[in-house]
Amino acid sequence: MNIGGKPWRTIWENPETGNVDVLDQRVLPHRVEVRALSDLATAAEAIRDMTVRGAPLIGATAGYGMWLAVRSVDEDRVDAAAAEARRVLDATRPTAVNLHWATRTVQARIAGAKDGNKRAAALECAREIVAQELDRSRRIGEHGLALIRDIAARKGGGPVQVLTHCNAGWLAAVDHGTATAPIYAAQAAGIALHVWVDETRPRNQGASLTAFELSEQGVPHSVIVDNAGGHLMRHGMVDLCIVGADRVAANGDAANKIGTYLKALAAHDNGVPFTVALPSSTIDFDLPTGDGIPIEERDPDEVRCIQGRFPDGSTGQVLLTPEASTARNWGFDVTPARLVTAFITERGVLAPSELATLRD
Amino acid sequence: MNIGGKPWRTIWENPETGNVDVLDQRVLPHRVEVRALSDLATAAEAIRDMTVRGAPLIGATAGYGMWLAVRSVDEDRVDAAAAEARRVLDATRPTAVNLHWATRTVQARIAGAKDGNKRAAALECAREIVAQELDRSRRIGEHGLALIRDIAARKGGGPVQVLTHCNAGWLAAVDHGTATAPIYAAQAAGIALHVWVDETRPRNQGASLTAFELSEQGVPHSVIVDNAGGHLMRHGMVDLCIVGADRVAANGDAANKIGTYLKALAAHDNGVPFTVALPSSTIDFDLPTGDGIPIEERDPDEVRCIQGRFPDGSTGQVLLTPEASTARNWGFDVTPARLVTAFITERGVLAPSELATLRD
Repeated sequence: MNIGGKPWRTIWENPETGNVDVLDQRVLPHRVEVRALSDLATAAEAIRDMTVRGAPLIGATAGYGMWLAVRSVDEDRVDAAAAEARRVLDATRPTAVNLHWATRTVQARIAGAKDGNKRAAALECAREIVAQELDRSRRIGEHGLALIRDIAARKGGGPVQVLTHCNAGWLAAVDHGTATAPIYAAQAAGIALHVWVDETRPRNQGASLTAFELSEQGVPHSVIVDNAGGHLMRHGMVDLCIVGADRVAANGDAANKIGTYLKALAAHDNGVPFTVALPSSTIDFDLPTGDGIPIEERDPDEVRCIQGRFPDGSTGQVLLTPEASTARNWGFDVTPARLVTAFITERGVLAPSELATLRD
Repeated sequence: MNIGGKPWRTIWENPETGNVDVLDQRVLPHRVEVRALSDLATAAEAIRDMTVRGAPLIGATAGYGMWLAVRSVDEDRVDAAAAEARRVLDATRPTAVNLHWATRTVQARIAGAKDGNKRAAALECAREIVAQELDRSRRIGEHGLALIRDIAARKGGGPVQVLTHCNAGWLAAVDHGTATAPIYAAQAAGIALHVWVDETRPRNQGASLTAFELSEQGVPHSVIVDNAGGHLMRHGMVDLCIVGADRVAANGDAANKIGTYLKALAAHDNGVPFTVALPSSTIDFDLPTGDGIPIEERDPDEVRCIQGRFPDGSTGQVLLTPEASTARNWGFDVTPARLVTAFITERGVLAPSELATLRD
């Protein structure tokens, strides 16, 4: 999608340097900066420090990270280096199932390749992961568009009001996004839309990333605090919630950014459809329910402080709490399947009870 | 309660200047500053710009504001000045029922006083409002203590885990607070407690004010983002929610800081008692349901920006969103009575259906 009127992606191979470049999402929306991934360490750090974030993009970065880890290794050491790279990458974000899927996929491709072809097989596999993500985002957009078209027809006037939480946008994917893919598809189809953007504390991915991409793409939107969605839904100001997911259990329990569960409760209480848009690779069929999803606890300073643009135009952090106060910071919560109206996947729109049909 | 080991109140008469002094709550927790209210304009501005906030403190400030508006007026002009002051003060915060109760009460006292006594009657009435608020906070603490004692006994070990939203603490009252009064009473009674403090965007009264007063008073607490409460409640980490209220309808629908409704939904979904602590003056028996409570929409820059302490120690605002993004900012939401377990008032603990017994 566009930044400054020009098409961008979140991750790409840089032919001049031979590295993999990524858009640094930690300094958005105030600055547009690119960071080079040159080896396993820089790829792992980019995932860990959230230079890149979002399930699909983490998967793509992990795929390239596997290649970066083996590209300069002697061919007879590639399998061992891949095993080590998988261990390092998997440890960066324990909740992200796409990460584990991507590293497993590349490792298997390397293991299956003949000697002499292993490094090339790693790159080919990383590229396929990117191509798959692009295709999935496009298909999620098509399936979600049908939902939005129905709502617009039923509403019979006025913009379709969509609420989203965190950033499951193109910045979380390679392009188009997951939760935003139906929004961009609807925009392209000429359907009037307005998006309520949850700011999504503590890291404010909504206020900084979703608002940025909607703004650059020209989609009408308003940023709201995470507290506001319940009020909006009680007053008929939301037609549809679309969120992403970091991991979904086989029964449809969905782990997503902390606070998603609260919005799902409000949607349920007010009869607003609550949908989760995701590539099917985010579904962990080995987990029967969401109780088994590990929820990472992150640095409390993400709560105690916040990043923004200072009056002089520079960016940095300000302290919000008393010096003496402690904070706690869980990254995700689990929305029970009973609160999810539908999953919008690249293979269609499914009720939680239908997820099992996606099992390969 | 204490700041720096010394007892403070939020509002007091300054015998040296003849003014009414208030603690400036906009610069907490980073600085402790006092602001003088010398006339109607400064009192109204202090309410409007949230130098003072919280239903009971707004009531006390409005009471003194009525006195400040008439204290220098010729005795035969006092009734007209009081009517004008009531109009000005009532317009500062339309949702705050205590404000309207206080201005009405002082105006009636002035109207009922004999010529020559009207200005003195205004001061006497403002002082009575303060004394009443102090007495109510103390009684709310006693009634809430009984609830916490029961939970501690049932739990049979470990601190009682209390979640609160926004600041209904002593900083929102004259002393002790409403939602915090049971907490301070339990602390004084030797009951082990830990408080989850919702930061409460957009103005972060939890992170800045509730955390400050708990810290200065030595109550164990952790600041969390507003998104976190649902996760905590799903994992049995909250024994009791206590929030304040800005206005409660006759049926028990409760208007409080935006986001309260989302926490009430999570409490209901997980069988956690959800209580609203309030002086009975906050109940508006003229309103049958919460549908009639006006919800003020505030400056969108409260969402687009946030105040904090810069690395150099100064305080100021940082921008969180893209320059081009708009924001919307409703101050309150209404929690339906069906989600409220009990109201903790100065006259006892009541179910929503029992509120009518408090009608005078």
